[in-house]
Amino acid sequence: MMQPRTETELEAELRAIGAARYHHLHPFHALLHEGKLSKEQVQAWALNRYVYQSRIPIKDASLIARCEDKDLRRIWRQRLIDHDGMAPGEGGIERWLKLTDDLGLRREAVTTMRLALPATRFAVDAYVAFVRERSLLEAVASSLTELFSPDIIRTRMAGMLASYPFVSKETLAYFEARTSEAPRDADFALAYVKRNAKTRELQELVLEALRFKCGVLWAQLDALYYAYVSPGDPPPGTFLSKRS
Amino acid sequence: MMQPRTETELEAELRAIGAARYHHLHPFHALLHEGKLSKEQVQAWALNRYVYQSRIPIKDASLIARCEDKDLRRIWRQRLIDHDGMAPGEGGIERWLKLTDDLGLRREAVTTMRLALPATRFAVDAYVAFVRERSLLEAVASSLTELFSPDIIRTRMAGMLASYPFVSKETLAYFEARTSEAPRDADFALAYVKRNAKTRELQELVLEALRFKCGVLWAQLDALYYAYVSPGDPPPGTFLSKRS
Repeated sequence: MMQPRTETELEAELRAIGAARYHHLHPFHALLHEGKLSKEQVQAWALNRYVYQSRIPIKDASLIARCEDKDLRRIWRQRLIDHDGMAPGEGGIERWLKLTDDLGLRREAVTTMRLALPATRFAVDAYVAFVRERSLLEAVASSLTELFSPDIIRTRMAGMLASYPFVSKETLAYFEARTSEAPRDADFALAYVKRNAKTRELQELVLEALRFKCGVLWAQLDALYYAYVSPGDPPPGTFLSKRS
Repeated sequence: MMQPRTETELEAELRAIGAARYHHLHPFHALLHEGKLSKEQVQAWALNRYVYQSRIPIKDASLIARCEDKDLRRIWRQRLIDHDGMAPGEGGIERWLKLTDDLGLRREAVTTMRLALPATRFAVDAYVAFVRERSLLEAVASSLTELFSPDIIRTRMAGMLASYPFVSKETLAYFEARTSEAPRDADFALAYVKRNAKTRELQELVLEALRFKCGVLWAQLDALYYAYVSPGDPPPGTFLSKRS
């Protein structure tokens, strides 16, 4: 039987997974951040990613719903507050809708999600199912992609502001908020998995949960690239599809 | 096909269900409130009801986890706050543990739930499963027993304070908090079901959800009565059992 990793070793392996697999490496993001997308392509990204955003509080409530520890429930509840807000019109989902508004998308076209790519929904549904069905440790570990988000968010905000006339600082309010929320969440989740994954087997599950989540994010960008960049053929019934 | 009930008729039927089936009518509560129980019997009640209390935020997070409407999620989130608190040591579950502390029960004996009656756990698990598996409307409707709780709470607080030397006002802090929380929650849930149950079929589901929930509460008291009053034979392995 292999020895468990030390906490330092476990963290280093988690960070290595992020360095190799996080979606900051995806070619679609390079295009987005370098100002190489048309407005319609940026719309397609924002409209599809709304599906992911809309499921985040559902995912987080699913984690709370299976958690016996009221202290962990209370800490995780902050994520519900971040996304659903403290009052009508507040919170991360509303901030995402500010982005889609500014991109010229109709609210209804976004919030019904009926124009989103099927692959987006499958990836997002797989994430929610993972959090519902796997162990609490794996559910927490699957949130660890937040460890890697501050860098990509800074790159994205600077790149999009510089490149797209239809994007203002207000348009990107969602990302501004995430620059403080994500590190707090990631630090907590990292400490949790280091404290709770004390056998080699549990550590493997933690690492695999992070790889899984990197796949959830990556697959969404593959689908966007295929549909809206190259070859650029959105499935029937989806945003901008020429098939009816 | 029968006409839908008016909102007034629906509310009247819901209130009639409460009048006939809510657990304020249960003989165990009469004994509890009239000071006719021994300290050990009151302990058995508090220890078993902890199982129910501990599952309330899990039930509420389960409802949030299946809710597409962020406004409903935000409003329902208040119930998580009420039970899990804003900081360590706060919230309804901690207040319930203050009750079990004051009754002389060891924390560990309560929170592990290993001494609780199997029937308690089955009833509580059935409630959580109902909220997870039925429609959102039925899940909301199953909370409507709160409509009937202010009266029983007032009776309970007055009766327990007058009857049991081991009970102080501080012991009953949980119920004091519920006197303001429960009406707010019940008013919201009642308005929600009146607004959303607009067909006869949906109205039947709402009424049945409330009957179901009354059964969840009633069954817990039946089990307590059998185990701790008459014949007074707790199942093997449970609190005060003489069977090993």
